[in-house]
Amino acid sequence: MRLILATHNPDKRKELEAILRAEMDGTVEILTLDDIPVGEIEETGETLEDNALLKARAVFEETGIPAVADDTGLEVKALGGAPGVYSARYAGEGATYEANVRKLLQELGGTEERQASFISVIAFCEIEKEAQIFRGEVHGKIAYEPRGTNGFGYDPVFIPGEPGDRTYAELSPEEKNENSHRGKAMRLFAKFLHSQLVVEQH
Amino acid sequence: MRLILATHNPDKRKELEAILRAEMDGTVEILTLDDIPVGEIEETGETLEDNALLKARAVFEETGIPAVADDTGLEVKALGGAPGVYSARYAGEGATYEANVRKLLQELGGTEERQASFISVIAFCEIEKEAQIFRGEVHGKIAYEPRGTNGFGYDPVFIPGEPGDRTYAELSPEEKNENSHRGKAMRLFAKFLHSQLVVEQH
Repeated sequence: MRLILATHNPDKRKELEAILRAEMDGTVEILTLDDIPVGEIEETGETLEDNALLKARAVFEETGIPAVADDTGLEVKALGGAPGVYSARYAGEGATYEANVRKLLQELGGTEERQASFISVIAFCEIEKEAQIFRGEVHGKIAYEPRGTNGFGYDPVFIPGEPGDRTYAELSPEEKNENSHRGKAMRLFAKFLHSQLVVEQH
Repeated sequence: MRLILATHNPDKRKELEAILRAEMDGTVEILTLDDIPVGEIEETGETLEDNALLKARAVFEETGIPAVADDTGLEVKALGGAPGVYSARYAGEGATYEANVRKLLQELGGTEERQASFISVIAFCEIEKEAQIFRGEVHGKIAYEPRGTNGFGYDPVFIPGEPGDRTYAELSPEEKNENSHRGKAMRLFAKFLHSQLVVEQH
């Protein structure tokens, strides 16, 4: 089957693609918005679920190709769950990863209460007026300063707890994807796709 | 399989049950919150999708039984989409159906722009961190005064256009369910359940 990844973020796309290829073993052809451009999609939702649904639906409606979208947020306990659904624009619309990380560390200051959850919601839309939602969560903590050069976004300051005390940015892409919030959500999605393929074959 | 209907509204439950029984032909056992009571669930979402997900998830998490929830809204064009997600409490928290209908007719006054859409979103949760969403829409108009005694909620003032000029409340339950917003969403859900049952049998 063909799928289109409903994201303009090349880092996110790389990760979604790597996880999906590993899980689906050649049974899916993966397209991106580079292959089939669509208009700008505004993320106006109040929740990760809403934004993921909004993107998957818009791209499916415009392209007619089963669409996969991801919305991801970092919820920091000491900040009452912020930046949450606003993680990508925490330091302002179009903010760089570095600016967001800087703001996060500033807001937290030296507090020892550094618990945080990284949450990905994957929405899948292949039939009009239907959607599937898959959620992956990892509970960890925020480092006192950025460490590592892999990954993107808040990866240099998120310590997932497993494995060890490294940040996401200090893990190899394979190590990160294996246990990450996005990896978990995508594996639930892959399991769903596999069950659908069984139906198609009968 | 067993399902639990995640709603305290007896009118909604009756409709969900009737549609599900007709579509699933004895393959599901349907429980309600009367059979297994759960705590109060607050509908704090900003969208129908959010509220439906919230209810289905809460009931699944508390009972361990695959849960079906419905959130429904009436979007009236001349009112900028209101009452929408607030349809059940348009005239205030705990408002009666009659009070909501009265407020709607007052707000609209004599305007001839009476287009409205009735939208149901069904959420289904049977696995932690996964959910399915099904949406049914009917485009119609608002009557100038209530007509008919069947159904509930805004049924006496919603004219679906098909069949004819009757309000939902002037249709038999079977006629309403066949073409209604809730009937459409539930049939998408039933189709999904059927495909799942095929997988289970192999």
